[in-house]
Amino acid sequence: MENSPIDSNHLSDSETDLNSESGLWRQIHDSIEIGDHQAVADAIAPLSPVETARLISRVSEQDRVEILTLLNPKDAADVVEDLPESQASDLMEVLTPENAASIVHELPNEQSAELLRDMPAAGAEAILDNLSKEEADITREMIHFEPDTAGALMSPDILSFHETQTVREVFQELELNREKYAKYDVLYAYVTRKNGELRGVLQLRNLVLSNHEEHLSQLMIQNPLFLKTDADLETMTDFFDDHHFLGVPVVHHITNKLVGVLDTEAVESAKERRASSTFLKFSGIIGGEELRSLPLKVRSLRRLAFLAPNILLNLLAASVIAQFQDTLQAVIVLAVFLPIISDMSGCSGNQAVAVSIRELSLGLIRPSEVWRVFHKESLVGLINGFVLGIVLGLIAGIWKDNVWLGLVVGGALMLNTIISVSLGGLVPLLLKRFKVDPALASGPILTTVTDMCGFFLVLSFASALLDKL
Amino acid sequence: MENSPIDSNHLSDSETDLNSESGLWRQIHDSIEIGDHQAVADAIAPLSPVETARLISRVSEQDRVEILTLLNPKDAADVVEDLPESQASDLMEVLTPENAASIVHELPNEQSAELLRDMPAAGAEAILDNLSKEEADITREMIHFEPDTAGALMSPDILSFHETQTVREVFQELELNREKYAKYDVLYAYVTRKNGELRGVLQLRNLVLSNHEEHLSQLMIQNPLFLKTDADLETMTDFFDDHHFLGVPVVHHITNKLVGVLDTEAVESAKERRASSTFLKFSGIIGGEELRSLPLKVRSLRRLAFLAPNILLNLLAASVIAQFQDTLQAVIVLAVFLPIISDMSGCSGNQAVAVSIRELSLGLIRPSEVWRVFHKESLVGLINGFVLGIVLGLIAGIWKDNVWLGLVVGGALMLNTIISVSLGGLVPLLLKRFKVDPALASGPILTTVTDMCGFFLVLSFASALLDKL
Repeated sequence: MENSPIDSNHLSDSETDLNSESGLWRQIHDSIEIGDHQAVADAIAPLSPVETARLISRVSEQDRVEILTLLNPKDAADVVEDLPESQASDLMEVLTPENAASIVHELPNEQSAELLRDMPAAGAEAILDNLSKEEADITREMIHFEPDTAGALMSPDILSFHETQTVREVFQELELNREKYAKYDVLYAYVTRKNGELRGVLQLRNLVLSNHEEHLSQLMIQNPLFLKTDADLETMTDFFDDHHFLGVPVVHHITNKLVGVLDTEAVESAKERRASSTFLKFSGIIGGEELRSLPLKVRSLRRLAFLAPNILLNLLAASVIAQFQDTLQAVIVLAVFLPIISDMSGCSGNQAVAVSIRELSLGLIRPSEVWRVFHKESLVGLINGFVLGIVLGLIAGIWKDNVWLGLVVGGALMLNTIISVSLGGLVPLLLKRFKVDPALASGPILTTVTDMCGFFLVLSFASALLDKL
Repeated sequence: MENSPIDSNHLSDSETDLNSESGLWRQIHDSIEIGDHQAVADAIAPLSPVETARLISRVSEQDRVEILTLLNPKDAADVVEDLPESQASDLMEVLTPENAASIVHELPNEQSAELLRDMPAAGAEAILDNLSKEEADITREMIHFEPDTAGALMSPDILSFHETQTVREVFQELELNREKYAKYDVLYAYVTRKNGELRGVLQLRNLVLSNHEEHLSQLMIQNPLFLKTDADLETMTDFFDDHHFLGVPVVHHITNKLVGVLDTEAVESAKERRASSTFLKFSGIIGGEELRSLPLKVRSLRRLAFLAPNILLNLLAASVIAQFQDTLQAVIVLAVFLPIISDMSGCSGNQAVAVSIRELSLGLIRPSEVWRVFHKESLVGLINGFVLGIVLGLIAGIWKDNVWLGLVVGGALMLNTIISVSLGGLVPLLLKRFKVDPALASGPILTTVTDMCGFFLVLSFASALLDKL
């Protein structure tokens, strides 16, 4: 953390407009051609993080590599920090391991670990081999923590001292390692046993105002709260909701050693990422965040990976129609209402899906509370099915001047809405129980089932009343 | 901010199971019946925030009001902080203004403002009338800031002093107001002119180590960075990406007076809320976050508000089928493929919609970049349309042993995929330009257009080749 905001009057929040932006890109491209490091660095320096990310995502991969290679590692690390994570990982893969390592060296360890975690193991190892042993070891350890656990989100950069040390020794150590500690976001200092177990917390203020001969064990706050490295996002959220701390020490879940400090901002960022990823997966974007700067082949293939199983589910649903071809041929007007009924009940069901996914992620329902959700959703389904069924039934009946047609169409929509809303609430719970990601699979499953039911209801009602239609 | 974690060994992250939870609710209900304040407070105290929120959302509205009224205001405020925002606002509305005010008094000002902003103006005023004039004025001012601006997210609780004051005077003032300042999240102290304009930042550390006769103007860091109250979420995100501060002073966008401090955590939380709300709106949940604890009528009506316009759009799409009833009657097997083509191209288009919404929210594309998005998406549409069209065409052709049927069905899916993917990328951009929320309107608009196109393509191809089918 930089300690304070210095010497600059106003924020430039006015972004350059599109034309001057593409002018800038051309200028950077030209500077790359002639290998003018300084011009590239100067052109990028005044850009906001969003502008930098936009720039990097628009130039060719070759220019992208050139830019990062031309910049000094510190500037390059700033650029990498501004990029969306998936893009940053991809970029590290195409750099030489030496160049990538020099950039990784400038990043905070938890960010290095995040980048390398997303890369193929061989590529990550090649980069780690170019780091100092100490740095490589810390990063390697962090890579192994599950994403979105306290171990993955914490910063390993902590001030920690032994309980037998005196205040004077602490000041000497701080003096000696001034340069190293300058990079740390120091909130507290921690006190450990010789074996690395957490014993206490030191407020920097107390350290400053204390007698220099005192032992840390006398000065520290004993038995502090902590989180374990395997704590999940919900546990971390709960912790910071309960305790208004800026940071909490993190202890390894197996060795019990103090390994890092977790701050609230990291937790909030992780929650934002998760909410975004839920939205994208729900919309059929899988395999991580898609950016339009990714190669065409990758984007097409990832999207097809979601669509291909979907075509099978669609065939399954449509097979119901194939069973009723005779009825449909006899009352061809039904073909007009089939897509309306399947789409409307799909929408109604998706609303229930979204509420369940959201309540699950907030911890407001548990995967086992099937009965409660069914009860709550079936009532909404009943009311909305009733309203929508009457509306569509009236439209159909009046259009073709046939009460029976209205009954078939309206009745089918009514029943199918009740089914799809009740089911839509339950599907995410059931998927969660079977450890399948609800955001990814709920939509296709729900759509298939409600399509099948909808088609079956309309066409079987119509078959039964064939002589009246 | 509490200053440090004290005296507690382990976190209870084991939640009570469902049975004992409902036992707890019964016990609380009984304590309410006999008016045992202490028992209610004792029962709620050990619950995690998520457990409290779940409890409150499950009991009857009457019990909910009783719980908040029985608890002392400080405990009640803790409960309110744990609730999702919409629920907290609703709850404040049903309390008496006196009770609500005593709870609001215990909340940080920015949270009070957020709660009251979501309430009807009359209800909010009734509560404000029961607060001290000073507190009511601060809160009233904050209510008027737009949600998700720096003014709405900042904390008005700052340590600020005049540049002419000495360090000694500062210490005297701190001593005098010890109790008030104890509640503040103090990151820095700020120095202002007599008229309230920001002049500098004081690091607490420098204050402690300084000569007590020094004037603040000599000690402070001059011309610090700041944000204005009307800064939006993107500007705030950019600021904290550029500067690794924990907090930044906020200055009123009209009066230029220092009014608060914004910390990174508030910005990250706001981003999380926005990502969640995008997901919910996209799934057809409008009018804010829906919780299953809301009254049935409210939930049904809000969902219908999204579904009702949808039924009209569906009728519009289906009207295309009505135009081609003769063709359909002649080749009834087409009815099997109509829903497949409309659903598959809907899915493909939604993927493009999601990528555009996400890139817009990250600032990676601008609403004016229609051509770039069209170019990028039409290529994906081309490839995926080709693949899916061939697959479905082969299935249709082989099933009915008719090459022409395969060509009609496959060709229609191919073309319609290209259309829906290109259009899916563009719709969010166009909506954004016309100031309509893309998350809310993109889905229904895209679905209607691609349904119409899909039905038209299949049925007009089939009409043209009617003698071969």
